Amino acid sequence: MASDRPLRGIFAPVTTPFRSEEIDLAAFSANLRHYASTALAGIVVLGSNGEAPLLDDDESDALIETARGVWPEGKWLIAGTGRESQRATIAATARAAARGVDAVMVRTPSFYKARVNAEAMTAFYAAVADASPVPVILYNVTMFTGVNMAPDTAARLSTHPNIVGIKDSGGDVTVISDLVAGCRPGFGVLAGSTSALYASLVVGATGATIGPADIAPDVCAALMTAVEAQRHDAARRLQLRLMPIAKSVGALYGIPGLKAAMDACGLTGGPPRPPLRAVSADAAALIREQVAALLQPA
Amino acid sequence: MASDRPLRGIFAPVTTPFRSEEIDLAAFSANLRHYASTALAGIVVLGSNGEAPLLDDDESDALIETARGVWPEGKWLIAGTGRESQRATIAATARAAARGVDAVMVRTPSFYKARVNAEAMTAFYAAVADASPVPVILYNVTMFTGVNMAPDTAARLSTHPNIVGIKDSGGDVTVISDLVAGCRPGFGVLAGSTSALYASLVVGATGATIGPADIAPDVCAALMTAVEAQRHDAARRLQLRLMPIAKSVGALYGIPGLKAAMDACGLTGGPPRPPLRAVSADAAALIREQVAALLQPA
Amino acid sequence: MASDRPLRGIFAPVTTPFRSEEIDLAAFSANLRHYASTALAGIVVLGSNGEAPLLDDDESDALIETARGVWPEGKWLIAGTGRESQRATIAATARAAARGVDAVMVRTPSFYKARVNAEAMTAFYAAVADASPVPVILYNVTMFTGVNMAPDTAARLSTHPNIVGIKDSGGDVTVISDLVAGCRPGFGVLAGSTSALYASLVVGATGATIGPADIAPDVCAALMTAVEAQRHDAARRLQLRLMPIAKSVGALYGIPGLKAAMDACGLTGGPPRPPLRAVSADAAALIREQVAALLQPA
Amino acid sequence: MASDRPLRGIFAPVTTPFRSEEIDLAAFSANLRHYASTALAGIVVLGSNGEAPLLDDDESDALIETARGVWPEGKWLIAGTGRESQRATIAATARAAARGVDAVMVRTPSFYKARVNAEAMTAFYAAVADASPVPVILYNVTMFTGVNMAPDTAARLSTHPNIVGIKDSGGDVTVISDLVAGCRPGFGVLAGSTSALYASLVVGATGATIGPADIAPDVCAALMTAVEAQRHDAARRLQLRLMPIAKSVGALYGIPGLKAAMDACGLTGGPPRPPLRAVSADAAALIREQVAALLQPA
Repeated sequence: MASDRPLRGIFAPVTTPFRSEEIDLAAFSANLRHYASTALAGIVVLGSNGEAPLLDDDESDALIETARGVWPEGKWLIAGTGRESQRATIAATARAAARGVDAVMVRTPSFYKARVNAEAMTAFYAAVADASPVPVILYNVTMFTGVNMAPDTAARLSTHPNIVGIKDSGGDVTVISDLVAGCRPGFGVLAGSTSALYASLVVGATGATIGPADIAPDVCAALMTAVEAQRHDAARRLQLRLMPIAKSVGALYGIPGLKAAMDACGLTGGPPRPPLRAVSADAAALIREQVAALLQPA
Repeated sequence: MASDRPLRGIFAPVTTPFRSEEIDLAAFSANLRHYASTALAGIVVLGSNGEAPLLDDDESDALIETARGVWPEGKWLIAGTGRESQRATIAATARAAARGVDAVMVRTPSFYKARVNAEAMTAFYAAVADASPVPVILYNVTMFTGVNMAPDTAARLSTHPNIVGIKDSGGDVTVISDLVAGCRPGFGVLAGSTSALYASLVVGATGATIGPADIAPDVCAALMTAVEAQRHDAARRLQLRLMPIAKSVGALYGIPGLKAAMDACGLTGGPPRPPLRAVSADAAALIREQVAALLQPA
Repeated sequence: MASDRPLRGIFAPVTTPFRSEEIDLAAFSANLRHYASTALAGIVVLGSNGEAPLLDDDESDALIETARGVWPEGKWLIAGTGRESQRATIAATARAAARGVDAVMVRTPSFYKARVNAEAMTAFYAAVADASPVPVILYNVTMFTGVNMAPDTAARLSTHPNIVGIKDSGGDVTVISDLVAGCRPGFGVLAGSTSALYASLVVGATGATIGPADIAPDVCAALMTAVEAQRHDAARRLQLRLMPIAKSVGALYGIPGLKAAMDACGLTGGPPRPPLRAVSADAAALIREQVAALLQPA
Repeated sequence: MASDRPLRGIFAPVTTPFRSEEIDLAAFSANLRHYASTALAGIVVLGSNGEAPLLDDDESDALIETARGVWPEGKWLIAGTGRESQRATIAATARAAARGVDAVMVRTPSFYKARVNAEAMTAFYAAVADASPVPVILYNVTMFTGVNMAPDTAARLSTHPNIVGIKDSGGDVTVISDLVAGCRPGFGVLAGSTSALYASLVVGATGATIGPADIAPDVCAALMTAVEAQRHDAARRLQLRLMPIAKSVGALYGIPGLKAAMDACGLTGGPPRPPLRAVSADAAALIREQVAALLQPA
């Protein structure tokens, strides 16, 4: 099982292709077969970039089953299973585990923001991790949830035997430092911000789960290798090379931008599900240029 | 059908009682039978105070069916049917309409905050209202969603023949004024903030959907009557009387506080569903005192 | 002395005219002579709209002296004397008092935001009010300071015998309600938000200090008279009439917009002091139209 | 003149000692003489940590004169000269230059936040730099000003021949990266956040101006030396050692905490000027322990 290995490396938060608002499992499989040939350490199905909040439970199950059929056993297969209620999160986690995922990534509940304090988060994750048949990865993504998990809450949760890591998408390197320093040794700390990728790895992040890994997985992996080899000039150059696309698939155009970028590099991005809307033709043209620049031989 | 009448008056956003994490439909019915004997203009089932994001679709359907069996035809029965995807929102709306609700209240999608701009909101609500067999009420609740619908977006949507009103929970009376001034004549503008209740009604709100209406519906209705009769001193006194409980069931303790207040006045509040957690014993004692003070004869 | 009367009515926060970056005292006097012929209850010299933070102490003293020479004894002459240090605030207050102002308006210190908590604010205002030869008015203007004075802090300070009122610019009518309910009887509560003017007066504000009073003092005063006479329809109409200019001299164009509006109605606005910059020609044209619409006979 | 050298290394933002609210120039001189014996590249007089907004112009001039008399010619002597108006900033800059400083550090104007956009900032700094007899350093400190200078505004300003660097206090390493990548070669980029010190230096910051440099200048300098020598493990250890005091002199206790820490290490911190208030006895005890741990031989 992949979960015996450390949570280390570059992970792609894969998207969900649609055709006329229906999931296109064939295109999904084709994308994953491509990713299997790259330097990725694993994939995350049903993350934020997978439009998980826009899918129903049957669709989610089908995506996991399909992924398991395609994705190699030797690399991490992670599924997002966070829901607003603890009960639904535990149920989704059980279904994902039954379908063979190596771990689940569970974002913080967030609707009742003021109530999701450190105490409630701790109780929630402990209950989910107690119930989960597979290891649990915390997921802190304030830009979408409006809720923040403080590093010391994560540090406390890192002592649970069935919680193996955290993805923090805030882009604040001080937070990454605090997580590395405060969590138990061996705990995975995955950066979720591309623009802070290099700096996050330098201060000790064990890897990253970032949109550009859906487009240029080997560029991301090369950056991590450079940091591990102390080739800081090379790492900095790769970081600069990632910046334009990072903005397009992040703050600027979000998931519709990421899907346009996948279309631009021969994978199937396709349209998002409403209320998300495809990017404009101008944005798509800009993104095509950025992808071409990113993927050309250095 | 209630929907021929204007969307006017005090509405209770009813809570969902649980026993061992399972919905307690008998207690739910009993609460509604009590509300039917009050001056309420209607109820909202499956709103934020109903813990809708913590329920699955089967549970939601059962609550609506039960409500329809209990609630009198002459008063508004409204169901919350907002989901993150347009497709799921339309499906939930169809199920609610099939079960006999007078209208649906649809909160803004919110997970992909940066993408839920005015254009996306407008397309989303138009699609939902086009598809809905019953009238649609917009629901803007930034404190939970992190997304804001600007008054001019609401004004544009108010011209859709199947959109009949808005609930705005922001508590900003200027926004209420702008909605009253900008939306088409006859459009319902419901305040969602108790602390701004009096001021909202003064500037033209047609009513309110507020937590304290679950506890003291007749106090809330009396305040509205006083404003309509230009008895401003009486209205101001009632507003001051509502303030302590407004804070307890709002910013201070949220839904767990509201449920404790219901327990304190002979209804069934009960425990919330995790990750929500019941209030402490101290908070419950404070809330009991506030309820007693609120409900004693003036 | 004006300060024996209650702090009640509409106050104009007068601007500071410049010519080639030097203060133009003649134009300043001419503006004040016009205001003296209106229904204003008083003026505030050296407020935020007076560009006080851009003036040095000698300039501030000259403006107060000039105002005292022009402004009638029977109406309030208030000067802004807030500084970042308590020591400089007390010194500026003493200089203003020596020049004959009826009261001083002191904004919260704000540079070291995290340190300006309730305790520090309370100690600061108590020290200033103890030292001041004239009554002190609190001034809470979060949009400029990034610091907020909570209503209960104001309520506590309202018991100081030399603190006579507060100007709160937040535009949150609930806050105005809380101030009215919590401060000692007779304490002045001045709204600082034009868009919330009507609603603020309805919930008990004793008046307002707002930019549009520099342009249309009699429209603002008529709105207050209408509320006092319970002519709510008339008040609402006047509120709607003030909205366009309120936005232009507020969020949209700020002080440069206010000065353009003064130029448009025959007073001297003139250029602001850098780093403030005059509005564009397009904005000036829009503002001229708004002023014309506002001032035409109803 | 020091300004021929690059803006590189660790700078101490020195504090202003008071005795009974009066500046204690003797203690100030003693502190500076100590700093002159350390590895500091320079000092900043009249920065935020120097309580500059709480001082009047005469006091500011006296501090600069005293510093010039004590501080060695071979190291940077920088004075903060930012004011709200462009005119006052230019005047303060001229006075500082006349007293022999090597450069001035000018924070963004901030009172009229919404008006301090990129265009206004650019015009302001160009005017100040044109007028200044000495090089100008930009200073972006959003936590105090509520205003943010975007990296591309700084990049544009970096081409002005009399603007030689920027201090950015935001602690966002992505911003530091963008400044390094976007500003002209040779432009100084000083980090202002201790918790992001190591990460900032890794991504190319040329140094830092941080509160802990007032207490442990040689620890800060050793961290920078370690990064330059690619001894990343040593750098990370030093970063961790700085974290507790960084929080105490930053978010937790601010300048009063910094002054308590200086008292704890044999320098003169002393009381801050009101409205700032000295830390509690408990906080002082905690800070003494942190200083002892920080300064003990590794």
